Amino acid sequence: MKYIDTVSFDIENNRLLLIDQARLPNEAVMLSLYKIEEIEHAIQALQVRGAPAIGVAAAIGLAVLARETKSDYGNSIQGYAERLKATRPTAVNLAWAVDRMLDGPRDAESLAHQALEIWREDIAACRNIGEHGSVLLRDGDCVLTHCNAGRLAAVRYGTALAPVYVAHERGKTIHVFADETRPLLQGARLTAYELHEAGIPVTLLCDNMAAALMQSGKITAVFVGADRIAANGDAANKIGSLGLSILARHFGVPFYVCAPFSTIDFQCGSGAGIPIEQRDASEITQLWYEKPMAPKGINVFNPAFDVIPAENISEFVTELGIFKPQDLSQQITCK
Amino acid sequence: MKYIDTVSFDIENNRLLLIDQARLPNEAVMLSLYKIEEIEHAIQALQVRGAPAIGVAAAIGLAVLARETKSDYGNSIQGYAERLKATRPTAVNLAWAVDRMLDGPRDAESLAHQALEIWREDIAACRNIGEHGSVLLRDGDCVLTHCNAGRLAAVRYGTALAPVYVAHERGKTIHVFADETRPLLQGARLTAYELHEAGIPVTLLCDNMAAALMQSGKITAVFVGADRIAANGDAANKIGSLGLSILARHFGVPFYVCAPFSTIDFQCGSGAGIPIEQRDASEITQLWYEKPMAPKGINVFNPAFDVIPAENISEFVTELGIFKPQDLSQQITCK
Repeated sequence: MKYIDTVSFDIENNRLLLIDQARLPNEAVMLSLYKIEEIEHAIQALQVRGAPAIGVAAAIGLAVLARETKSDYGNSIQGYAERLKATRPTAVNLAWAVDRMLDGPRDAESLAHQALEIWREDIAACRNIGEHGSVLLRDGDCVLTHCNAGRLAAVRYGTALAPVYVAHERGKTIHVFADETRPLLQGARLTAYELHEAGIPVTLLCDNMAAALMQSGKITAVFVGADRIAANGDAANKIGSLGLSILARHFGVPFYVCAPFSTIDFQCGSGAGIPIEQRDASEITQLWYEKPMAPKGINVFNPAFDVIPAENISEFVTELGIFKPQDLSQQITCK
Repeated sequence: MKYIDTVSFDIENNRLLLIDQARLPNEAVMLSLYKIEEIEHAIQALQVRGAPAIGVAAAIGLAVLARETKSDYGNSIQGYAERLKATRPTAVNLAWAVDRMLDGPRDAESLAHQALEIWREDIAACRNIGEHGSVLLRDGDCVLTHCNAGRLAAVRYGTALAPVYVAHERGKTIHVFADETRPLLQGARLTAYELHEAGIPVTLLCDNMAAALMQSGKITAVFVGADRIAANGDAANKIGSLGLSILARHFGVPFYVCAPFSTIDFQCGSGAGIPIEQRDASEITQLWYEKPMAPKGINVFNPAFDVIPAENISEFVTELGIFKPQDLSQQITCK
């Protein structure tokens, strides 16, 4: 199977390359960025989204900016790093990638080298998540997923969908049911799109149909990604994941969270410590629509994430293997 | 408070009057109908929707058609009745209202009289649901509702929102949280609209945010309507209700189903016997949008209803009082 990278580094022209996810599924456009405002905007406007992809984009972005910088080099790098880290608050991979960029030598070529290293590691981590997770899938399984944690959420393969891609490569037929994922419709626009392109059978549903679908007995497992995992195994993910985990538990369906170790925030004791981004009301009332779909000036509740309690997670699928929530923090020493 | 009736009978001009719900919240337009094709279309295209409103609209529609009919009267009435009953399969009130129209004398003026009787009874039943249900609400309560079971789903007052309207009339402040209710957005377009118009505080959320909202501890009760209730207390309602009932149970939030007795199908032993309408894929992929939001030709799962098991329902709020699910069928003899 051929994969087009969601995020990449055009070294020769010194550009951050991104598939513009705000325009999918109607147009597939590649963005080529080198200004701080463009890169900030790309992250905030969700032209690039998905915790691993944001981290890699920020790292490559910082390297591109460093290579463009002529004067006051030290302060510029520090300033760019802070601006990039501030673009979105929940995903820990963003801060993790920027901090790692600043950890070593800060000359432009070292930063470019480091960014490429982060990019390569993301590909390898997602591939390994796929290898480990594919063991959980049998031929004919029907998997439910929420939001997009596929190749469009990382450089390649993705997290929650990596096991599906690997199983598909090995000849297993896996049918994916994709929650459309309101309000930004990442499931409809991105997950349905990338699976359809890859020739993997996919069925789209509204988020509120997941209970009826699970009740029908069709779903053999739920696979989702994560934006930040606390040390105790609580995991923040796209809004709706908490409800889905309660339904899965109710119907006895295994619930897997797939993420690289860079998603784990060992400084954060539990889900209560994870900051939840609140987004604009217009995402619910107006975005995508021909006409507003709610009365003007209506109050709106629009958190971008919620927290899946560790007790609702059957297993974490990581690049290092499959772990029970309570065993995650033991891995910090082996890493 | 002033209520504009959602469905009414213009006796003088022999017209069925409906608020066109397909155009809310952007335009408030009154439809005036007298042809079978128009009335069928109004029900199928959801210009009128909500189980009680559909029943009353079909009854008034049949009376209007009878008064328009010049020749082959008997066969025409029978044919119209069958066409109206076939417009939507899940809501039992539709068949109930049409059958009741055919029960007595079938001359045009008797049918008009019977339709007005059904219309008046709907207003009284909803008012009584409101009176009984308002006892469950304390000043300052925050109620979560799904879809629209407000005044736009009946002639006046509604079912699930009737207790809120009555509590509001009596000076209690009740804050309603309204699920937007994909794919047809009845929560955003109708519930948020009618509560906003009535001066009742309302906050809109996406369906997948209900779990996070309940987890926050804000919600004191869930109130929903029903499209068909089986004899054992299982209740079919808008897709998403099943999931909401599981979440409410998980978080210890009381879950109330509000409906008139005409919604109970005593012939139907359990929820397994309720036919579930499957609707078109385009409702999920294209409807309302400027551009399609999913790849062309994608598979879609789009059931219009799901079934809340009786065990997840705290109480039924009816025009005759408040009942536990297991006590519903005892009421058949007292009715």
